[in-house]
Amino acid sequence: MTANGLPRARIAVVGLGLIGGSVLRRLAAGHDAVGYDADPGSRELARAAGLRVADDLATAADAGLVVLAVPMQALSTVVGQLRPLLGSDTVFTDVGSVKTPAYGVLRSAGLGDRFVGGHPMAGTERSGFAASDATLFDGAAWVLCVEPDTDLAAWLLVASVLTRLGARVVPATAAEHDTAVARISHLPHVLAAALAATAADAGPLALTLAAGSFRDGTRVAATRPDLTAQMCAANQGPLDAAVAEFVGRLTGGLDVLTAGHHARTRWQAVTGAPTERELIIDHAGLAGDLIALGREGGWVVGVDQRRLLLAVPPRV
Amino acid sequence: MTANGLPRARIAVVGLGLIGGSVLRRLAAGHDAVGYDADPGSRELARAAGLRVADDLATAADAGLVVLAVPMQALSTVVGQLRPLLGSDTVFTDVGSVKTPAYGVLRSAGLGDRFVGGHPMAGTERSGFAASDATLFDGAAWVLCVEPDTDLAAWLLVASVLTRLGARVVPATAAEHDTAVARISHLPHVLAAALAATAADAGPLALTLAAGSFRDGTRVAATRPDLTAQMCAANQGPLDAAVAEFVGRLTGGLDVLTAGHHARTRWQAVTGAPTERELIIDHAGLAGDLIALGREGGWVVGVDQRRLLLAVPPRV
Repeated sequence: MTANGLPRARIAVVGLGLIGGSVLRRLAAGHDAVGYDADPGSRELARAAGLRVADDLATAADAGLVVLAVPMQALSTVVGQLRPLLGSDTVFTDVGSVKTPAYGVLRSAGLGDRFVGGHPMAGTERSGFAASDATLFDGAAWVLCVEPDTDLAAWLLVASVLTRLGARVVPATAAEHDTAVARISHLPHVLAAALAATAADAGPLALTLAAGSFRDGTRVAATRPDLTAQMCAANQGPLDAAVAEFVGRLTGGLDVLTAGHHARTRWQAVTGAPTERELIIDHAGLAGDLIALGREGGWVVGVDQRRLLLAVPPRV
Repeated sequence: MTANGLPRARIAVVGLGLIGGSVLRRLAAGHDAVGYDADPGSRELARAAGLRVADDLATAADAGLVVLAVPMQALSTVVGQLRPLLGSDTVFTDVGSVKTPAYGVLRSAGLGDRFVGGHPMAGTERSGFAASDATLFDGAAWVLCVEPDTDLAAWLLVASVLTRLGARVVPATAAEHDTAVARISHLPHVLAAALAATAADAGPLALTLAAGSFRDGTRVAATRPDLTAQMCAANQGPLDAAVAEFVGRLTGGLDVLTAGHHARTRWQAVTGAPTERELIIDHAGLAGDLIALGREGGWVVGVDQRRLLLAVPPRV
C-alpha cells in the first residue's frame, strides 16, 4: 500500500495531457495503472473520466514502470523530484518528440540504465486531457530507443506495455530517431508555417483561392507555435540538416517533382501488408537485431517470455 | 441545326477530363451543353454516362460559349483548330491553372476580346473523365479574369454559367491570379515533393514513422509529376518569387512559426460566414469594382440582368 492508501500500481503515468491521458485511459481497463498531474484541474478531469489518479508524485513514483508524459522542458524538474522517491527497480520511459536530450536528462540523474526513451507518433493539433482518447495509439508507430546503456529487460517490459496500447513498437537509436523525426515531423511543421505566411503575403485574394493543397500543406501550422518551437529547438542539429537538404532540393529545379512522387509512392507501398517474423529474446545479439529491425522499417507486434513477434513492411 | 444533326448548343465543353467532364455532367441537366474530346475513348466514356457528345470539333465550335478544358500545352493547337470554325459572337473561357500564358495564346489568335480566362480551384490527385463529378465545383472558388481588353458582357455570360456550376466566381487580373496561385497551389506542390524526397533519404525507418504531418504535407506529391511540372513551368516567374520568399522565411529562424500560425488562423477565419452585397452592372466602373472585390477576397454568387450578388469574407 502507498501513502494515500491506493494499492501499488505496476504503471504510473506522470502528466495527463493528450498523450498521458490517452495512455491512462487505455490502461485503465487493467486496473494496474495510476495517473498524476501537477495541475489539480487536470487531475479532476481525469478522475471525472473514471480514472485512478494520485494527488502526490510520491504515489506515482512507487511503481514498476513510470511513464513520463510531461512537456520536454519539464522533464528535468520531474525527474529531479522523482529521483529520491524511487524504488530500486523502477523503470522509466518518456513520450517526448526528441530523444537525445531526454537521454541527457536521465543520464545526468544517474538513471540512464533504467530509462527506455519512447516517442508515440500520434499527436494531433489539440492538447490537454480533454483531447485524450483511449484509441489514440491504435496502429500508431511508437519508437522505443535502443542505446548502448539500455537494459534489455527494461526495454522488453516497456515494449510489452506499448503493444497493449495498440502501438507498433519501432526500435531505433536515439540519434536515428532524431534524424528521422526531423524529416517526417519537425520539417513538415516549419514548412507548413512558412507556406502559410508566404501565401498570406499575397493578401485576401490568395486566402480565398486557397483550397486542398494549401489546406493540407498548412494543417500543422494550426498547432500552438510555442509547442512547435520547443520541439524544433530541441532537435536543432538534425532539423538544420534536414532544412539544408530540403532547400537544395527545392531550388534544384523540377527534377524534385519526380523524386518526390517516387518517395510518396514508396511511403504508400510501405503501408501495405507486412511480413511476420519472430525474434528469440535470449541471445547476445538482441540489441543489434532490434536496431536492424527498425532500420528496415519494421516493428514489434507482441512480446512473450521467449520471443518477440515482428512485422516487416514490404520492400519497395 | 449543326452538321451532325444536334441542335445548336449554348455551351460547348472541349476536353472531357476531370474538369471538362465535371462541367458537362453538371450542365447536362439543362440540355443546352455538348461535349467534345479529341480522344474517342473519352467521348465513349462520356456518352456511356448519358452525356451529349459531338464527334467533331466543328459541332463544339458552333456554340455561344466554348469552355476550353484541354491541357495547357494543347490550348494553342485547339484554338488554332477552332479559329476558322467560329461564329461571330462566340465567347471563350478556359480552365487552365496559369492565366498569363492563356491570354497570350488567345490574344495571338486575335480572340483576346472574346476570351475570359478562368481557373477552378477544384483539382484532385486523379484525372480523366472517370474521375469527373457533377458536384466537383460546389462551393469551390473559380477565378474569372478581368483584363484591360475584357468584354464585360462576355464576362457576365461566363460568370452566370459558373454560378450555375455551384462555384464562387472570384474576379482577378491574370497577373494577380498567377501570383496568388503560385503561393497557394504551385508552391505547395513543389514543397510536397521536396519534403517527400528529403524524408525518404532517411530510409525505411523514417517512412515507417511518417504519420499525420508527413501524410498531409506530401499528399499532392501523389499527383502525376509531369502534370505538376507543366503547371509550375507555365508560372515560373511568380513561382520563383514565391520560392525565394519561402526560403527566406524558412531559414530565418523560428519566428516563422508564429507568423505561419497567424496566417493559418486568418485563413480559417476567412472561411467564416461572408457578408452579402450587390453591385449594379450598368456603370462605367464595373471592371475596377470587380477587381477590388477579388482583392478583398470576395466573390460573385449570382448574376441577373441588372445586378451581381456578391459575398465578402469577414475582415481578419
